[in-house]
Amino acid sequence: MALEIERKFLVKTQAWRDYAGAGVSYAQGYLTREPGRSVRVRVAGEQGFLTIKSKTEGISRQEYEYPIPLAEAWELLTSLCYQPVIEKTRYRIPQGPLVWEVDEFWGLNQGLILAEVELDDASQVIELPAWIGLEVSQDPRYFNAYLSQHPYSQWPLEP
Amino acid sequence: MALEIERKFLVKTQAWRDYAGAGVSYAQGYLTREPGRSVRVRVAGEQGFLTIKSKTEGISRQEYEYPIPLAEAWELLTSLCYQPVIEKTRYRIPQGPLVWEVDEFWGLNQGLILAEVELDDASQVIELPAWIGLEVSQDPRYFNAYLSQHPYSQWPLEP
Repeated sequence: MALEIERKFLVKTQAWRDYAGAGVSYAQGYLTREPGRSVRVRVAGEQGFLTIKSKTEGISRQEYEYPIPLAEAWELLTSLCYQPVIEKTRYRIPQGPLVWEVDEFWGLNQGLILAEVELDDASQVIELPAWIGLEVSQDPRYFNAYLSQHPYSQWPLEP
Repeated sequence: MALEIERKFLVKTQAWRDYAGAGVSYAQGYLTREPGRSVRVRVAGEQGFLTIKSKTEGISRQEYEYPIPLAEAWELLTSLCYQPVIEKTRYRIPQGPLVWEVDEFWGLNQGLILAEVELDDASQVIELPAWIGLEVSQDPRYFNAYLSQHPYSQWPLEP
């Protein structure tokens, strides 16, 4: 088991693209919509994964990840996961000891771009790049499991 | 993906014990209680497994099974699976080309004994040992996922 400690932000400019190399295509879906834990199937490039996460406490959660055959990951995504599946391109942007992961969403979540950074401990001080916007680490609307049920393109306009 | 085709029976005598070797201890729990698919964590002897099954159609369903480390399987069982976890001893009884698996349940399901046999196709003709009782293949009360929520010892008495 790994402890995943992660902070998540919106981006406020497109300047991150200057630092991003080639992205990797991700497709991911969920086998459960119950509270308390999530079971995710992911295709990242040419590799499949099955990932179990506990519910988030603060910015931390338990994570168990297992590689699975690519063909079986696609079968699970298309036949057993809740639809729609989330599609995004993930870009990795190294910054000193950290790696920012910028997710550009497609499909029903097109228009949404999120930047995440994984930390060693919850109190770690990090330097925010100029293109980083509002922190949304604890806003459940930006959880991928939520986005798969309530795609970004269908969110009500903010008042 | 494997297609699991299975028939399940009650036992009507204890004669199966004459043919059963040493049993293997199983503990298993579920990460989801939603209809349509199940995500099971199992410890079988000294090996952990993560298994995803589709809903049953007749006596068949899709099954995806992945070995996982024993310690992680126990963590998932105790911290993320719905409680109580199912405990049983599984005995294998070869009969010609078939293998009967007899599950003797413990804990809150103590008193229940089920015999299963896996088939190559749904129409396969099988010879039933004399100790085999009522077929319950399509009775959802005998699904392990159901037993984890409604343990056998708490079933209402039949009228």
